[in-house]
Amino acid sequence: MKVRVGINGYGTIGKRVACAVKAQDDMEIVGVTKTRPSYEARLAGMEGFPLYTATPDQVATFEKEGIKVAGSIEDLLSKVDIIVDATPGGVAEKYKALYEKAGVKAIFQGGEDHGLAGVSFNAFANYNEAWGTQFARVVSCNTTGLVRTLYPLDKVFGLDKVSATIVRRGADPSDIKGSALNSLEPSLKLPTHHGPDVQTIMPWLNITTMAVKAPTTLMHAHCIIADLRKKAKDQDVLAVWDNVPRVKFVSGKDGIKSTAQIMELGRDLKRDRGDFMEIVVWQDGVKVVGNTLYYYQGVHQESDVVPENIDCIRSMMKLEPDGMKSIKKTDKSLGIGK
Amino acid sequence: MKVRVGINGYGTIGKRVACAVKAQDDMEIVGVTKTRPSYEARLAGMEGFPLYTATPDQVATFEKEGIKVAGSIEDLLSKVDIIVDATPGGVAEKYKALYEKAGVKAIFQGGEDHGLAGVSFNAFANYNEAWGTQFARVVSCNTTGLVRTLYPLDKVFGLDKVSATIVRRGADPSDIKGSALNSLEPSLKLPTHHGPDVQTIMPWLNITTMAVKAPTTLMHAHCIIADLRKKAKDQDVLAVWDNVPRVKFVSGKDGIKSTAQIMELGRDLKRDRGDFMEIVVWQDGVKVVGNTLYYYQGVHQESDVVPENIDCIRSMMKLEPDGMKSIKKTDKSLGIGK
Amino acid sequence: MKVRVGINGYGTIGKRVACAVKAQDDMEIVGVTKTRPSYEARLAGMEGFPLYTATPDQVATFEKEGIKVAGSIEDLLSKVDIIVDATPGGVAEKYKALYEKAGVKAIFQGGEDHGLAGVSFNAFANYNEAWGTQFARVVSCNTTGLVRTLYPLDKVFGLDKVSATIVRRGADPSDIKGSALNSLEPSLKLPTHHGPDVQTIMPWLNITTMAVKAPTTLMHAHCIIADLRKKAKDQDVLAVWDNVPRVKFVSGKDGIKSTAQIMELGRDLKRDRGDFMEIVVWQDGVKVVGNTLYYYQGVHQESDVVPENIDCIRSMMKLEPDGMKSIKKTDKSLGIGK
Amino acid sequence: MKVRVGINGYGTIGKRVACAVKAQDDMEIVGVTKTRPSYEARLAGMEGFPLYTATPDQVATFEKEGIKVAGSIEDLLSKVDIIVDATPGGVAEKYKALYEKAGVKAIFQGGEDHGLAGVSFNAFANYNEAWGTQFARVVSCNTTGLVRTLYPLDKVFGLDKVSATIVRRGADPSDIKGSALNSLEPSLKLPTHHGPDVQTIMPWLNITTMAVKAPTTLMHAHCIIADLRKKAKDQDVLAVWDNVPRVKFVSGKDGIKSTAQIMELGRDLKRDRGDFMEIVVWQDGVKVVGNTLYYYQGVHQESDVVPENIDCIRSMMKLEPDGMKSIKKTDKSLGIGK
Repeated sequence: MKVRVGINGYGTIGKRVACAVKAQDDMEIVGVTKTRPSYEARLAGMEGFPLYTATPDQVATFEKEGIKVAGSIEDLLSKVDIIVDATPGGVAEKYKALYEKAGVKAIFQGGEDHGLAGVSFNAFANYNEAWGTQFARVVSCNTTGLVRTLYPLDKVFGLDKVSATIVRRGADPSDIKGSALNSLEPSLKLPTHHGPDVQTIMPWLNITTMAVKAPTTLMHAHCIIADLRKKAKDQDVLAVWDNVPRVKFVSGKDGIKSTAQIMELGRDLKRDRGDFMEIVVWQDGVKVVGNTLYYYQGVHQESDVVPENIDCIRSMMKLEPDGMKSIKKTDKSLGIGK
Repeated sequence: MKVRVGINGYGTIGKRVACAVKAQDDMEIVGVTKTRPSYEARLAGMEGFPLYTATPDQVATFEKEGIKVAGSIEDLLSKVDIIVDATPGGVAEKYKALYEKAGVKAIFQGGEDHGLAGVSFNAFANYNEAWGTQFARVVSCNTTGLVRTLYPLDKVFGLDKVSATIVRRGADPSDIKGSALNSLEPSLKLPTHHGPDVQTIMPWLNITTMAVKAPTTLMHAHCIIADLRKKAKDQDVLAVWDNVPRVKFVSGKDGIKSTAQIMELGRDLKRDRGDFMEIVVWQDGVKVVGNTLYYYQGVHQESDVVPENIDCIRSMMKLEPDGMKSIKKTDKSLGIGK
Repeated sequence: MKVRVGINGYGTIGKRVACAVKAQDDMEIVGVTKTRPSYEARLAGMEGFPLYTATPDQVATFEKEGIKVAGSIEDLLSKVDIIVDATPGGVAEKYKALYEKAGVKAIFQGGEDHGLAGVSFNAFANYNEAWGTQFARVVSCNTTGLVRTLYPLDKVFGLDKVSATIVRRGADPSDIKGSALNSLEPSLKLPTHHGPDVQTIMPWLNITTMAVKAPTTLMHAHCIIADLRKKAKDQDVLAVWDNVPRVKFVSGKDGIKSTAQIMELGRDLKRDRGDFMEIVVWQDGVKVVGNTLYYYQGVHQESDVVPENIDCIRSMMKLEPDGMKSIKKTDKSLGIGK
Repeated sequence: MKVRVGINGYGTIGKRVACAVKAQDDMEIVGVTKTRPSYEARLAGMEGFPLYTATPDQVATFEKEGIKVAGSIEDLLSKVDIIVDATPGGVAEKYKALYEKAGVKAIFQGGEDHGLAGVSFNAFANYNEAWGTQFARVVSCNTTGLVRTLYPLDKVFGLDKVSATIVRRGADPSDIKGSALNSLEPSLKLPTHHGPDVQTIMPWLNITTMAVKAPTTLMHAHCIIADLRKKAKDQDVLAVWDNVPRVKFVSGKDGIKSTAQIMELGRDLKRDRGDFMEIVVWQDGVKVVGNTLYYYQGVHQESDVVPENIDCIRSMMKLEPDGMKSIKKTDKSLGIGK
């Protein structure tokens, strides 16, 4: 019998996790919620996902717009084993009691504090920590990106001080509120929260982060400087990443010089939604100078956490004890396997 | 036996036409050309399209980068019935003699002058004009967009004066040269070429156009003002478009207020590359005041001409005498049928 | 004795009107208000403008940040003859009673409804309508732009149908909330409010407008199509504008092809804040075809209404009965005279 | 007698240096050159700068457009003591022989290699190195920015390893060619040239740099991580900068959170062209953690090198032996003194 999954919040992350669950053979979508009767609510039906309202009192609102709903979030919770909370950052807290009352497990996203779940999750780094827990938090897109490349480096070479500057995308592509046009905005509160967030997964890591917001919608770009404990050449570093999941190389020499061209590659590869769930490292933008490694990576904020949610479900639901097996199964189903 | 098609120029339009040809049962891709050994050249192989160089002297350049090529454009021309020239605007002229020498039919794109082909093509408006011709030109993305909505209006209501203002996207999403940032640039030479280009398909139409370039990559937006000869209400106009191919409605009330959200819809619909081959009309942005109709439409510059190329091949190769049948066949294969 | 002017809202428009008042010899700034102790509040002091809080209860908040204030809005109102309300759109309504109670005249900006003031104002078109009134509204930046070029055309040639498409800037340069990035957003409610707003000044004019929002901060661009009652050549039209105030020509041939380059010209001319208070018409983007005139104009949303506010003060305060004399005096003082 | 200065290349930098020279009492502009008869050529006349053509054969081209010229570059060279070469990066090399032949001193800009001049210049760090030399190079906007804040830190605290990530503006505000829209583009060749360029001024400094290009026009943003040899608190670092020229603080708490708002401040301060010649440090974005300092700074690429050019003239022409006196004189004349 498949694990029954609900999605609370069928938006940027929620709709992607729902489609990813649909692609698995050991779990299924029982329903998804939406707060407004928008076109995304209609699309849930097209994907075959029963629609629920995010609060009990909205059923009539949806039906007035001709969108049939199967009930409210409470109805959904009565039918699922686990709920993926993909509500906007900071909203999950008010839902947690509801999940507890219904006795369902819940996955929160990186916009929530570590403390809400108690366990922060990255499939490659700490799959087992979510084993059988009631709650877990899949870390944010940026944290996932940093952990994906830093964790294996730390295992192989050992990392001393790490500094990362995150050039953040201003808004998601379809965000109509948007962001400041034509400006750069530093995150003045230093160090930024990204470093401590990485430490929820790798508490031993000496990492500090800065961030600047730029008027672009496609991806975050990370500029990372990491001191290595063992000597390594550029190719040694590349070899490490070549052997871990969810890290993909592109090359400026091949014509992929920018985040826009990575996204074009995602479209050309016929990925669903053109998504790039892997962290993208520029092969010709990796350089070891002395004992310090410099590299750039691109993070597709809309999708990189999606496979992590799938593995997190497997760990919490005790579907697969071996993290690497779960990762491979997930990646194969999503067409991102190596 | 399938019609053998070659693509000269596997770029933004060429790669899409190639994939669209692949989706048909009465034609097949024999090969595609590329001028540089970039990542797009590698992707041609992934799609199963034999790769040729755009000039004879480039074979070694490609092989040095580890990309196997099947020959040069001349070799390709010896194996095809028809070539789709998707080279950058103004380049096709130098290739025309080569096509003539090889005795193959050729389709040019809208960046070329009408005179180069003698026949300008839009499947719904003048499918038969390309019947059996050696050359034809599929009109540009903007012209295709204007003809798709204006031609049926003219048939049903009759059009007097039409004025269109085109808010042009500055560059395509993956264009690294880009365009002026943070500025608006009017096309000062008035009237712009778009009006006369529409007249290559609808020579009787009284149309004048203006254009402004904006710093966005996703779609062109058209603001159209058309005087109707017969009285019509908003819903009469919508009913006309509802019955013609390749025009699709979206609605601001549903949450689709901008070109970014149309593109998001393309991704959510799991369209290849997130493309939107239909012209997109905002249902709640259509208004008749007196005898004048006002409406907005979005034009996806990367893809709207793709199905037109397929129909143009059918007409030139005499595969299907009935234009509407060809359109329906094309649209069904591409998932954009009504 | 100089007319005593207060500014309620020392923001984008308010700070510019304050500086413009300062440049006149028949009026003076008594004080300006601010809602928050931001850097703009500090700058008021640098300009020598006494600072007042926009509501009575904020005095302590400002002083905690080390910004001395002279009192609140009510104190300011007790000292002025006229207040220029430059609060955000829709806010003025709640202040109107306060102005009435204090017995001061008030100018509202274009974000307010015509009805709030009863008189809508453009110096060249209807200077006398505000003569001695208690309230008047200076129309919005876009409406000011349309009236500046259409009114003289109408006087000289007579205008039949006018259609204007406004490509709107998404946000002001320093607006941190910003706007949707990388998208075009049509104003779906048709016709847009701009046409009726022009009719508050030129009620006889047959004008319809459309609008699209673009991700740029510098200027609005207008694409205007106007049917002329009398025959005219391109140069006849240019000659009309050459003889009216606050319309300035630029030329693409000279290298000024975009709104960004107009703004660069404003900087090169050492205008305060690089502002361009005139409506900017591209000389080589003006074309008469048959009886229809096509032209483009740029509207600097931050500043074009500033001289209008000065003239409006003169009319309301009965300082100068001749509108053209007021305009010339204002323009000379601001360095924008012809 | 005033030092006679010519400007070769009256563009973004050249026009600003010309105006800055005009503001000094010990030097004067003899003429400026332009390659095309654009609006900037006309503006030179408005500023009272005699215009010369950048090559001898262009005189007729300018006069055809009604722009009077005083001769060509060779004529200009015969009249000046020193030429400021503000031609586009890489162009100066071909002019160097001409300058040598004419026996005039020349200042190159940061787009040229250090080797072309032999001396790289920053007024605060090494004023004396250009004393009486025939050639000198004012380092680029980014290098100037890094040296302005790092040099005094190094003097006071001693600097170990420095890492800087430069978020580059894509293009200047009026650049019509522009840059990639909506993308982030890392500088893949690592370390980037910025580090070695800082070392032309501070050869002992251990500095490595990375860079990402963003679609904005206003300023570069630097994210700097510097290891200090002596213990220091945030306020100690701020105190250092408070005492050196051409470093200015802004504060996010005051409402200046982004590069756009810095530029707004430049406009509000009525700076010519709204320029910000100082390096702008966010006061509340400075943080010492352990022995590592993190800070953000904004660099106005159009203007920060302008006062450096003035001081460089003084040093090369032996006008003032004391660098700090030259800096103070320059800054006072330009309104940027502390």
